[in-house]
Amino acid sequence: MAQRLEVFAVEGIGEVRPGDDLAGLIVAAVDAGEHDLADGDVVVVTQKVVSKAENRLVAIDPDDPHAHRPLVLEESVRVLRRRGDLVISETAHGFICANAGIDLSNVEAGWAALLPEDPDRSARRIRDALVHRFGIGVAVIVSDTFGRPWRRGVTDVAIGSAGLRPVVDLRGTTDALGRELMVTEVAVADEIAAAAELVMGKADGIPVAVVRGIPLDWLGEGSVVGDLVRPPQDDLFR
Amino acid sequence: MAQRLEVFAVEGIGEVRPGDDLAGLIVAAVDAGEHDLADGDVVVVTQKVVSKAENRLVAIDPDDPHAHRPLVLEESVRVLRRRGDLVISETAHGFICANAGIDLSNVEAGWAALLPEDPDRSARRIRDALVHRFGIGVAVIVSDTFGRPWRRGVTDVAIGSAGLRPVVDLRGTTDALGRELMVTEVAVADEIAAAAELVMGKADGIPVAVVRGIPLDWLGEGSVVGDLVRPPQDDLFR
Repeated sequence: MAQRLEVFAVEGIGEVRPGDDLAGLIVAAVDAGEHDLADGDVVVVTQKVVSKAENRLVAIDPDDPHAHRPLVLEESVRVLRRRGDLVISETAHGFICANAGIDLSNVEAGWAALLPEDPDRSARRIRDALVHRFGIGVAVIVSDTFGRPWRRGVTDVAIGSAGLRPVVDLRGTTDALGRELMVTEVAVADEIAAAAELVMGKADGIPVAVVRGIPLDWLGEGSVVGDLVRPPQDDLFR
Repeated sequence: MAQRLEVFAVEGIGEVRPGDDLAGLIVAAVDAGEHDLADGDVVVVTQKVVSKAENRLVAIDPDDPHAHRPLVLEESVRVLRRRGDLVISETAHGFICANAGIDLSNVEAGWAALLPEDPDRSARRIRDALVHRFGIGVAVIVSDTFGRPWRRGVTDVAIGSAGLRPVVDLRGTTDALGRELMVTEVAVADEIAAAAELVMGKADGIPVAVVRGIPLDWLGEGSVVGDLVRPPQDDLFR
């Protein structure tokens, strides 16, 4: 395990617009900022700016408080619950979240931001650009803010990743007393996204943070949709 | 928001035994270690050592792989799902987790560790001792490793806290575009527990970590059971 982590915000990215080269904006902000990127860093980027750069914006009637409703249904493959304007549904990616992940906050009035089509691909593109530019091995997580059952409050989770094993499997390693561990698949991508959220906040317009110091053997192949979304048949909690 | 966090393991705590003064062990490890505690630090302590120090250990037959079964039912107020030896249930605290949070790993063969009776009280006791000893304002989280629906892998969450607002309510603040935010209750206690897990791991016997750098206005009154456990009637995900 890591013995020490640093988590810091990447400042100075500013407003992101459709068609913007998000990786380029991140590179420029890193170049202008006080921290360089280092080998093994995880760069966490919020869904909001990924969706904007990828032009996942849809015009909606700014005077209709229910204007996002048909979009939510379009973006859902299955509705789990519904209460008034709030829908809990499953998206085509397999995420279960409120309003199919459609974002109305931090988007200009009259626009809704859909989730990226393929957030793992979004993460891969950003990672490729950062690796190319800085010549170091970094990982990228695209994060989003989800509610969850049983517990109040939202937390950030990973919806896409590149260069990282989202779930680190410690099965077969032994615990401190030499006995085999029982439950040992740790969703490190979600824990890293949560740690990053603590320096990004909701209202400050800081869409990128870096988590530095993870063990290098957590880097590698993997994707959120492939490794972190749980197939229904395996899901005793469902 | 914080702009920069540090997360580091507190090493040298060693094996914890029933009746041990856990706060005293943490104080001694901090005194002997390379990091002093600072005002505003959040000290995250795993359930495992809290349960051991509070003697929440129950003898079970080491040769019976199902020996924990009756304990799980005793510690549950409601069983949600059952598959073979694995039970998802609700504890008296209101937590929904596997096997009522009963821990067989990292406990000597022949023993099971129950959850602390009142993890918020456990956190308060540790916090009181740390505040008394160091004369600074720290918060304490008792963390545990839970599975969750829909996503693979476990993450650490808060099961008790003291000196911290577990859910920080940003309702009514405005986003970067000046519009009112919609979903803005952030479960910072869970995000801090997740960040701490990244430096503790499962197998290394490091039961305490410090998260340094949270905004001071997240410190304050609150408890996990009071603030973070969601009443069923409010829970659209349930």
